[in-house]
Amino acid sequence: MTLETLQQLIQKHKYDAFIITRNNLFLGQDTREDENKIRELTGFSGSAGTLVVFADKAVLLVDGRYEIQAALETDPTKVSVKLSTLRRWLQETFPLGRKTKIAYDPWCHSIKEIDELERLFPDICFIADPHELTAPLQSAFMATPFNHEEEFSGISRDEKLAQIAEFIQQQNLDAYLFTAADDVSWLLNLRSDALLHTPILRAFALVSKDSSVILFADNLDIPEAHPLRELGKHLKTFAPRRLGLDLKQTPRRILDFLSSPAAFCALASPISKSKAVKNPIELQGIRTAHHRDGVALINFLYWLEQNYSKITELDVVAKLHEFRAHQPLYYGESFATIAASAAHGAIVHYQPDENSNIPLGNNTLLLLDSGAQYFDGTTDVTRTIALGTPTKEMIHNYTLVLKSHIALSATRFPPSTSGIALDAIARRPLWQENKNYNHGTGHGVGCFLNVHENPPSLSPHGDSELKPGMITSIEPGYYIEGSYGIRIENLAEVKNLSAADEPPLYGFEFLTLVPLDKRLIDKYLLSEEEVIWINHYHQTIWEQLSQELAPDEKQWLQKACAPL
Amino acid sequence: MTLETLQQLIQKHKYDAFIITRNNLFLGQDTREDENKIRELTGFSGSAGTLVVFADKAVLLVDGRYEIQAALETDPTKVSVKLSTLRRWLQETFPLGRKTKIAYDPWCHSIKEIDELERLFPDICFIADPHELTAPLQSAFMATPFNHEEEFSGISRDEKLAQIAEFIQQQNLDAYLFTAADDVSWLLNLRSDALLHTPILRAFALVSKDSSVILFADNLDIPEAHPLRELGKHLKTFAPRRLGLDLKQTPRRILDFLSSPAAFCALASPISKSKAVKNPIELQGIRTAHHRDGVALINFLYWLEQNYSKITELDVVAKLHEFRAHQPLYYGESFATIAASAAHGAIVHYQPDENSNIPLGNNTLLLLDSGAQYFDGTTDVTRTIALGTPTKEMIHNYTLVLKSHIALSATRFPPSTSGIALDAIARRPLWQENKNYNHGTGHGVGCFLNVHENPPSLSPHGDSELKPGMITSIEPGYYIEGSYGIRIENLAEVKNLSAADEPPLYGFEFLTLVPLDKRLIDKYLLSEEEVIWINHYHQTIWEQLSQELAPDEKQWLQKACAPL
Repeated sequence: MTLETLQQLIQKHKYDAFIITRNNLFLGQDTREDENKIRELTGFSGSAGTLVVFADKAVLLVDGRYEIQAALETDPTKVSVKLSTLRRWLQETFPLGRKTKIAYDPWCHSIKEIDELERLFPDICFIADPHELTAPLQSAFMATPFNHEEEFSGISRDEKLAQIAEFIQQQNLDAYLFTAADDVSWLLNLRSDALLHTPILRAFALVSKDSSVILFADNLDIPEAHPLRELGKHLKTFAPRRLGLDLKQTPRRILDFLSSPAAFCALASPISKSKAVKNPIELQGIRTAHHRDGVALINFLYWLEQNYSKITELDVVAKLHEFRAHQPLYYGESFATIAASAAHGAIVHYQPDENSNIPLGNNTLLLLDSGAQYFDGTTDVTRTIALGTPTKEMIHNYTLVLKSHIALSATRFPPSTSGIALDAIARRPLWQENKNYNHGTGHGVGCFLNVHENPPSLSPHGDSELKPGMITSIEPGYYIEGSYGIRIENLAEVKNLSAADEPPLYGFEFLTLVPLDKRLIDKYLLSEEEVIWINHYHQTIWEQLSQELAPDEKQWLQKACAPL
Repeated sequence: MTLETLQQLIQKHKYDAFIITRNNLFLGQDTREDENKIRELTGFSGSAGTLVVFADKAVLLVDGRYEIQAALETDPTKVSVKLSTLRRWLQETFPLGRKTKIAYDPWCHSIKEIDELERLFPDICFIADPHELTAPLQSAFMATPFNHEEEFSGISRDEKLAQIAEFIQQQNLDAYLFTAADDVSWLLNLRSDALLHTPILRAFALVSKDSSVILFADNLDIPEAHPLRELGKHLKTFAPRRLGLDLKQTPRRILDFLSSPAAFCALASPISKSKAVKNPIELQGIRTAHHRDGVALINFLYWLEQNYSKITELDVVAKLHEFRAHQPLYYGESFATIAASAAHGAIVHYQPDENSNIPLGNNTLLLLDSGAQYFDGTTDVTRTIALGTPTKEMIHNYTLVLKSHIALSATRFPPSTSGIALDAIARRPLWQENKNYNHGTGHGVGCFLNVHENPPSLSPHGDSELKPGMITSIEPGYYIEGSYGIRIENLAEVKNLSAADEPPLYGFEFLTLVPLDKRLIDKYLLSEEEVIWINHYHQTIWEQLSQELAPDEKQWLQKACAPL
């Protein structure tokens, strides 16, 4: 569909506007390239954003990560880019008292989101557009499922189903409809090749109190799965309050399939929390996956030092992929590698392509954010690397970001501490110099699932609490538009650090094992504790990985990990 | 009323429970002692708490400040004390599906609070009890109003009314009903002697779009004020959406006075934000009030050093009052002085009385939290003072609390930073040793108004943003039950610290001018920046206050303010 076609539809139905998201019915999950409606309509390829289309214009709302990129990728005569959210933008744009008709695709917005919009904007009429422009799935691709073996998942499908059935019984329900694809993948220990970077099974699962499961999916090669159009038939049978739904994760469209608006009981998905707290087998797998990923990154960093003057960003992407693909249990990249040299580093989620690709350059920085899906765990790591001789300013700013990284990594905190609180602790060293970064500090990570998994969420808006066994990224940054970008990202496991007779005290244990570039560290800006943290981090890497390297790489690592 | 009388009423009306708060119709404002229903029913004298009364028992819900005190003051055979909030306690106590009838006094709960309770607990039936057990006002005391002169308030009543009338017109309203006593006091530049510590005028003000005002009040000696029972007559005239109400600050009872449930427009009080950001005259007054308050505290600290071995907690209260009362523009104490020696310091809001009063003791700590109302500003300061020789542990813990105090005091932060974020920055030094404090880090302070004013609120739940011109306390602490308590509290002004061509960057400028007890500081636990902060703080006190002291006090201050 083109922007013009959609604008004709808007005129025909006398809508004032139409909200388009990147979502399909698996809200907030990654999508296939051929499903990205915002890209189709505007050219913007970023992983987040909302498009509001009017009869004669369109407004693309993005967050700080994508402000520069969105402006570069879209046609300014058709699309204006704004750094905002849908709510803030509606608040600023629609004065009280004007009656406006805004259409949306009810497959692509949760029940909760529409409820909140309707409550916040009583003067806007939100209309569920009946055209199913975008859903159930536009793609003709037929996905192949496969098992995620218990040696990796740690708990059998039957055991998980028994736990869920117990939850359903406790809540006096007949069944619960799981609509988040990663919830369903986790529950059934199933994965699929539907997406390039995330091995999720895209299906809804209706689980009964006797632990039986009915799967609903299109474009999925499972004989026993029912087509999505049969969902209504199954949901109509439930008496009021006997079906559990997670209002945040369930498309608004599902309400149409119920016998009455009160047919369901609003209950947060019990899988979301279980999935976030990794079990011991998963934690072991994630740790060894990071071990292998560290070796691949060190292979790469050694190679880069020899070759940086001769190569481009796309060479970096290809070579890093090659090293990772040699590792056992490798499945694929967990997201498209961000290899951003010099000014590209300031485009927070830049990914090189044929058009943008440049040689790495000299006396500048390379920002490299990448990750892998291994069958036993998912990785996500960012390193900022000096190419040639960095300037004093680069060293100063890198050291500041490192101070931010360590401030949070070394923090201990009691239970119930929110993501907002931890986010601020990371930002403080940058704030002291009136510097900041326009993205969150940390996100949860799935186990051979989404590389962005919620909870946890460490950000100015992240109100979820951390619990032992959760995995989070810690990734402060600093970006100078037109010059360079800096980000330092490790994954870490949340642990209870207190002795048995003391109140619980949580902290982080790093999982990522990739050395920091010491050429970018100004030791005189660091406290004694910070120096100790860095030396301990490098010592751990040396102890864990040096045995797995070729002699010349080992020599390189020894120098990279020598104490400050 | 006794607990037994209320329990008979509960039985008679077949309520399952009755919620009792300390509020009267001026929600969340301080009340007179003879209006404290929770004290009347249970003996608990704390400044916060909720009582849930059943036919055969009562549960007193308190926060961390009052856990110890509530247990000491109540009869355990009648009242059980829980560290909880009403919501959390209802969530944990009432399983889904049980139909429960809980009564409340509709004068004493806001519209918003009841709305939220009804939404959160659809299985509980909340019943507005019609007996007016507690409201409008039980007290027979007739309060005398007086002007708060423009030399102190900075803006005339007419100018404030014109601003509010403009707001009312902009919002397409006919009028706005102000129901918060401190909003009305600020708007009309009026105060009264209704309360011991807070000079608020207790009245509702109905302001029309032509800036005319109708006051509603009982027990207030203003001839033109209408009795509260006439409120209904005036409110019934408004067409839908023509009357503005702040749902957080308006008693649920007011809804009964409207011609229809849609008669009002929900709009946060425009005074709340104006009042929080102090004008230049107010800021100047607050600064000079802190100057005088600092002199009084230094008079006291010098006297204490000579006399601590011979006196009791109540002597401290009396002597401190005496020094303050000598200062120009003194009106009264802004709250009952907390003079807590040794183990009493661990009772966070302990106030000595005839029964609890003890000699100060030796080789222990005195926690002294006090403040004053001056006509030009309100103060609130806590110092922890060594009596005799402190232990190493006391010195260690005091230094930790001081690190927390400085961590936040020296923090710079961008606009939109929430109170949750700043709270965490203060707690981090304590968290590192698995220590914490069970109260907020900071609260707003009025100008010759409430010593606790919201916004701002720096706490794990404080989501308000700070703006330049706001005043907040910074008061981390640490308490060891049965041993001692430590708290260090300054008031600070929020300022924009950035240069004109840079993005805004906020920080704190201290207002409180009272030396810290250096005998309790372990310099080896401090960073270089922390030492600089302390020396600069003491240097400022010396420069600003030394001229106002008697020679012996001056000599004492010179030593107290000498660099670490």
